[in-house]
Amino acid sequence: AAPGSFRALNCESVKHWVAARPALQQRLGPADSVESWQVKEVGDGNINFVFIVEGPSGALCVKQALPYVRCVGESWPLTQDRVRIEAAVLAEEAAWCPSHVPAVYLYDKDMALIVMRYLAPPFLILRRGLIAGAIYPRLAEHLATFLAGTLFHTSLIKLNSSEFRKKVAQYENDEMCRLTEQVIFTEPYFTAKNNRWTSPQLDPDVAELQADVAARVAACELKSLFCSKPQALLHGDLHTGSIMVTDAETSVIDPEFAFYGPMAFDVGKILANLLLAYFASDGHEKTPGEREGQRGWLLSCVIDTWTGFSSSFVRLWSEHGAQGDLYPGVLTGPDAPGGADALAACQASFMRQLFHETVQFMGAFIIRRLVGIAHVADMDSISDLDLRATCERRALRFGRRLLVEGAKGELSSIQGLVEVVALLRATSN
Amino acid sequence: AAPGSFRALNCESVKHWVAARPALQQRLGPADSVESWQVKEVGDGNINFVFIVEGPSGALCVKQALPYVRCVGESWPLTQDRVRIEAAVLAEEAAWCPSHVPAVYLYDKDMALIVMRYLAPPFLILRRGLIAGAIYPRLAEHLATFLAGTLFHTSLIKLNSSEFRKKVAQYENDEMCRLTEQVIFTEPYFTAKNNRWTSPQLDPDVAELQADVAARVAACELKSLFCSKPQALLHGDLHTGSIMVTDAETSVIDPEFAFYGPMAFDVGKILANLLLAYFASDGHEKTPGEREGQRGWLLSCVIDTWTGFSSSFVRLWSEHGAQGDLYPGVLTGPDAPGGADALAACQASFMRQLFHETVQFMGAFIIRRLVGIAHVADMDSISDLDLRATCERRALRFGRRLLVEGAKGELSSIQGLVEVVALLRATSN
Ligand SMILES: Nc1ncnc2c1ncn2[C@@H]1O[C@H](COP(=O)(O)OP(=O)(O)O)[C@@H](O)[C@H]1O
Ligand SMILES: Nc1ncnc2c1ncn2[C@@H]1O[C@H](COP(=O)(O)OP(=O)(O)O)[C@@H](O)[C@H]1O
Ligand SMILES: [Mg+2]
Ligand SMILES: [Mg+2]
Ligand SMILES: [Mg+2]
Ligand SMILES: [Mg+2]
Ligand SMILES: [Mg+2]
Repeated sequence: AAPGSFRALNCESVKHWVAARPALQQRLGPADSVESWQVKEVGDGNINFVFIVEGPSGALCVKQALPYVRCVGESWPLTQDRVRIEAAVLAEEAAWCPSHVPAVYLYDKDMALIVMRYLAPPFLILRRGLIAGAIYPRLAEHLATFLAGTLFHTSLIKLNSSEFRKKVAQYENDEMCRLTEQVIFTEPYFTAKNNRWTSPQLDPDVAELQADVAARVAACELKSLFCSKPQALLHGDLHTGSIMVTDAETSVIDPEFAFYGPMAFDVGKILANLLLAYFASDGHEKTPGEREGQRGWLLSCVIDTWTGFSSSFVRLWSEHGAQGDLYPGVLTGPDAPGGADALAACQASFMRQLFHETVQFMGAFIIRRLVGIAHVADMDSISDLDLRATCERRALRFGRRLLVEGAKGELSSIQGLVEVVALLRATSN
Repeated sequence: AAPGSFRALNCESVKHWVAARPALQQRLGPADSVESWQVKEVGDGNINFVFIVEGPSGALCVKQALPYVRCVGESWPLTQDRVRIEAAVLAEEAAWCPSHVPAVYLYDKDMALIVMRYLAPPFLILRRGLIAGAIYPRLAEHLATFLAGTLFHTSLIKLNSSEFRKKVAQYENDEMCRLTEQVIFTEPYFTAKNNRWTSPQLDPDVAELQADVAARVAACELKSLFCSKPQALLHGDLHTGSIMVTDAETSVIDPEFAFYGPMAFDVGKILANLLLAYFASDGHEKTPGEREGQRGWLLSCVIDTWTGFSSSFVRLWSEHGAQGDLYPGVLTGPDAPGGADALAACQASFMRQLFHETVQFMGAFIIRRLVGIAHVADMDSISDLDLRATCERRALRFGRRLLVEGAKGELSSIQGLVEVVALLRATSN
């Protein structure tokens, strides 16, 4: 499309737009089949429009960004530059873990859209599968691969500092970052009018959170990391609603919030969302204990994602880190005196710090989904409000503890953290 | 000048270049006085050319960057974009502490030059004054003002995050940063061919440093902060050779290495260079104890610079921080519940971390000036090599301790740190 030629597509016009592009049209069917193509708009996210176009030979997914936030409307404008970021990041991620991102067929800047592989059923948004009670045996392994690959290969451990700075600049994503700063790190900690929570049940809990000086200080420090720690190219919105799964496959979508930030942001966000599913599970039981199996799996998934990520990341570092500028071979390679010791010491120190930040970010992500503007369907779909509030209160207490303490004491290992979760669920109301 | 019209000036051509620009010419004298103007090239730095042009009515300083490193030659190319950075930073600094930077009269992009106020004698490069044994009673106060003003006002504590990200991008200074990464954080820690030291006297000390795994790990972590902690607009090269002084005035020149980095880099660099002067002072005594007075002053200058900086910075934060995005008024302002406590807690935590990083950076700066490519005249001008080596060895030991320990134990306050310095000088050879 020509510059300035943006127009919002709908279920009818998207068909003709696709049909006019032979490379796309051929994926769906012969030119004379266009009238028979089926289109549905499935965008259940809050921000963009997503069309599935199906023809006799196949199907496509078309994601288009309007210049505002979908669920709010024109009163909340939002840069369409986010589509440039999303297309570039999908390509970057595909370079490091092609089996965990949808293939992109076309990016059209002026139309602010991306055409990509349709992840057809049985692919399902992970959050919906979790709410339905499902278990995904390979999820932890896939998440670990995705996290380690995307975070390692875009970091200064792998890159030289010129390449690194170019990428940091390329992925500047000001408006999307501002949104995150506001809704995750600022609003939950004061009486912002966007906030909501299960009321009146959680009123005292929210008041207590917002009076908690230590929580506020920690939130500010996390915001500082978010804004001032360009460490790797993050997905930026890696919750269970940005992941599509089958029993065998895992595909990460929707990286429009991507930017260079602290690795712990991505790692912590997915772990926090798995724990939100855990805390919500009591609210979905038709008979008590029905979801005990899923809960056990969710907790091991949290452990396995962290440990799998951590060991993959360190392995990539040992294999490729010497070429990067942060821990160059001359200092930590096998030929440096004590090089192996230095490498091991750098890795241990790095992973310790990363885990600490991950724990704190997890706390912030749990909190914002309970008292901030955007909640999770895991909790919102619990119709008994007292039961929902009980689930949410446990999560909120746990979130506060993570945020304030970080990886200290019982929380200094992922196993310890998970034990605290289980105990808290079993013993608190 | 027109694009592509760069030419290197010399003592003759600079006169005519200035004379052809009426606003500049008028500062020096009437048009018919040009033939009588005197020019000297005074660039004693390693990188650029600096001309002083004097006429009957006044004088000017013209600093020009060639597309390579002056002291090496065309074999070490270096971007002339550094002049854009220098001009922009001088203007930015002037906004926050006009009495501590030379006024800029003109920046010419194509000629890669800056015309600025000539800091005429008695202005002297601080390093030279220190080598000569001088004391500058107002130096600490001025350095504190400069550091607090420039670092606070360019930080996310003061700015909103969009403004902040724009500035981070504007001041990207890739080539200059790479130089720093190489010569400060990498080469001193292995057998790089650029390294030099007082040999054979320091051979065992250098071998020990380069076998020290903890020092190497710490150097890597500082490099990580340098590359991945955009916290404020740094001067980037704030040693005693970038500061011109009189008894009453202090002017900071030469910010061509400026970029968004960790505040501790600037603070630590100037403190480290003051301590290098301290450790060198024994080498300049004609009679033992002659410089005891200067030494006492140097140590109080280190203390007063840190404490003055720290209290000014916190004061600016309390006054202007509510408008910035990092610790916004809604979270830490007087109207937030417990807002004053939250502000105090954020400030204490921030300053504690900043001091820790400052101590570690000081260590790295001391080390690189003793074993890396670029040394300091404070030490180099000690002609008795055994005496020089003794001074350098003390500094090197101290630097290693700072680098590895950071602000722990005795080093957890600036007073404690200074006591360690004095004891080390008095008791070690
Ligand atoms: N490639 C795809 N294949 C199948 N469904 C998709 C695909 N991309 C998005 N969707 C569906 O569209 C929804 C919204 O997509 P998403 O990229 O998350 O948009 P938003 O940015 O608005 O959150 C997803 O939850 C999913 O149901
Ligand atoms: N404005 C000035 N007034 C007087 N002398 C100056 C001025 N700027 C630079 N000089 C002199 O020139 C020398 C080199 O300048 P500097 O900016 O440090 O260049 P470099 O980038 O090459 O280190 C300084 O050490 C100082 O002696
Ligand atoms: Mg989405
Ligand atoms: Mg989210
Ligand atoms: Mg999205
Ligand atoms: Mg200089
Ligand atoms: Mg210079």
